[in-house]
Amino acid sequence: MQPIRLGLVGYGKIAQDQHVPAIHANPAFQLVSVATQGQPCDGVANFKSLGELLENGPQVDAIAFCTPPQGRFALVQQALAAGKHVLVEKPPCATLGEAMELVSQTQQQGVTGLFAWHSRYAPGIEAAREWLATRTLQHVQIDWKEDVRKWHPGQAWIWQPGGLGVFDPGINALSIATHLLPLPMFVESAQLRVPSNCQSPIAASILMSDAKHLDIRAEFDFDHGHDELWSIEIRCVEGTLRLDGGGALLSIDGVQQTVSEEGEYAAVYRHFQQLIASKSSDLDLQPLRLVADSFFVGSRALVEPFYD
Amino acid sequence: MQPIRLGLVGYGKIAQDQHVPAIHANPAFQLVSVATQGQPCDGVANFKSLGELLENGPQVDAIAFCTPPQGRFALVQQALAAGKHVLVEKPPCATLGEAMELVSQTQQQGVTGLFAWHSRYAPGIEAAREWLATRTLQHVQIDWKEDVRKWHPGQAWIWQPGGLGVFDPGINALSIATHLLPLPMFVESAQLRVPSNCQSPIAASILMSDAKHLDIRAEFDFDHGHDELWSIEIRCVEGTLRLDGGGALLSIDGVQQTVSEEGEYAAVYRHFQQLIASKSSDLDLQPLRLVADSFFVGSRALVEPFYD
Repeated sequence: MQPIRLGLVGYGKIAQDQHVPAIHANPAFQLVSVATQGQPCDGVANFKSLGELLENGPQVDAIAFCTPPQGRFALVQQALAAGKHVLVEKPPCATLGEAMELVSQTQQQGVTGLFAWHSRYAPGIEAAREWLATRTLQHVQIDWKEDVRKWHPGQAWIWQPGGLGVFDPGINALSIATHLLPLPMFVESAQLRVPSNCQSPIAASILMSDAKHLDIRAEFDFDHGHDELWSIEIRCVEGTLRLDGGGALLSIDGVQQTVSEEGEYAAVYRHFQQLIASKSSDLDLQPLRLVADSFFVGSRALVEPFYD
Repeated sequence: MQPIRLGLVGYGKIAQDQHVPAIHANPAFQLVSVATQGQPCDGVANFKSLGELLENGPQVDAIAFCTPPQGRFALVQQALAAGKHVLVEKPPCATLGEAMELVSQTQQQGVTGLFAWHSRYAPGIEAAREWLATRTLQHVQIDWKEDVRKWHPGQAWIWQPGGLGVFDPGINALSIATHLLPLPMFVESAQLRVPSNCQSPIAASILMSDAKHLDIRAEFDFDHGHDELWSIEIRCVEGTLRLDGGGALLSIDGVQQTVSEEGEYAAVYRHFQQLIASKSSDLDLQPLRLVADSFFVGSRALVEPFYD
């Protein structure tokens, strides 16, 4: 079988650390070109823009998008219009409207699209889904607490309008929770704590539910310098499931479980390959929708200014 | 033909002033029951809740929802589960997630749903749509400026989390604009001015566009005590169209045009009747999505406190 010829747009940290190694490790893909305005990618054709890549580069079947979400909408549309399959890093777009439009344009073009919520491919997630499938859920507690100074040093964009603040890591937790739970989730209320010199929240408490009135709570904290944690605990009638380390670790009633050995991005690209083969798409809006609704109905309290 | 037997939930001001007269004036409908916790509606069976209405009342084919958007989600789901057609006042729900779920549940049930964006039925709108259909659009300017003290005296909910603030009238303008323009609209940026003692904006400036990069600007002001205006001006290559009075008046290049004589809610119910007859739905999320995205990516500035 011929490999899927892949172009990649945006050769920054996430592309270099995760995408390119995952692509090279998967024989179903062949990375043939990169569009970047920064340092070039070794061993492939490099271009300054997606337009040049599509026009002057070697033929590609699919494009992976690793540029920042602001401005990505126009680029993904350009690839769709050229009939390419698209893989889009999280969050897919700057607004829910843009993301909804990409869903409809992907369907119209009849190509494969993947909104790559990478945390859904963390090692413990599949085993957690399997265990939960036959259980009766009672309560979900999400704690996503980290030190922004460590993970996003000097990244002012995260605090600006359209920057997600603590929802930048928090959307990963929401992408896992929406993947684990059987029914759609809805925001009931949210409290957003916004530094007085910023536009985006540094911490948030979100109350959610589903059609069966499941009690789902999330605590996001971006100013958590000690004992970082990325955990989701789901209490069921039959026992308690807990994911730690962002989904890397899984325990049930305190007993550590065997998890997958596949890396997150290896699994992302394997999923993309399967979607292309089955001529289908996986364009889930739910994580972005929960963030937008949290901003929409959330109450805001100003807290002390944030300095990097 | 048998009339459509209609139940109505929430017998407040909008139901009394608009819905019930429009229903009585349309022989295609027969109002048979009302669920209300306030004063009863004359001449029909009254119940304390939708559950009682469905269980103990005369048979109905459709339900109209005039309760506040908070809490409406569960009610509409109850009606859909009972196989009823639904007409939902604006805004359809408290969050975009709830509204999206209602769209999918309506489809699953195979009944008719209508999100009744009533301003789309203002007298000048159809003539405006017709004129615009063959024109080349260049610029859209929306000005929606009114005195909240006059229209919402003492209504504290409008300023609370989930209350729309100036987007409560503003969503009417967005519902018209999305109805007039040929392509979906997207929020590029927004500036929200929030009184320091409130959670919702009292004024907003929104920059939008569509896939053809049309320049769409909206100015919403809720503290505009003098010279209120509700206007949309669309500059085209061929001339300038202007709606005033919330869509009641239409002019082209300054010349007043003939408009419909049908009332907004008469047209809403006529549309509902046609949808039921053709077994279709009209559940447009766009106005609510534009509001949610404005809150999502909007920058906020605190302004002086608001006192009623």
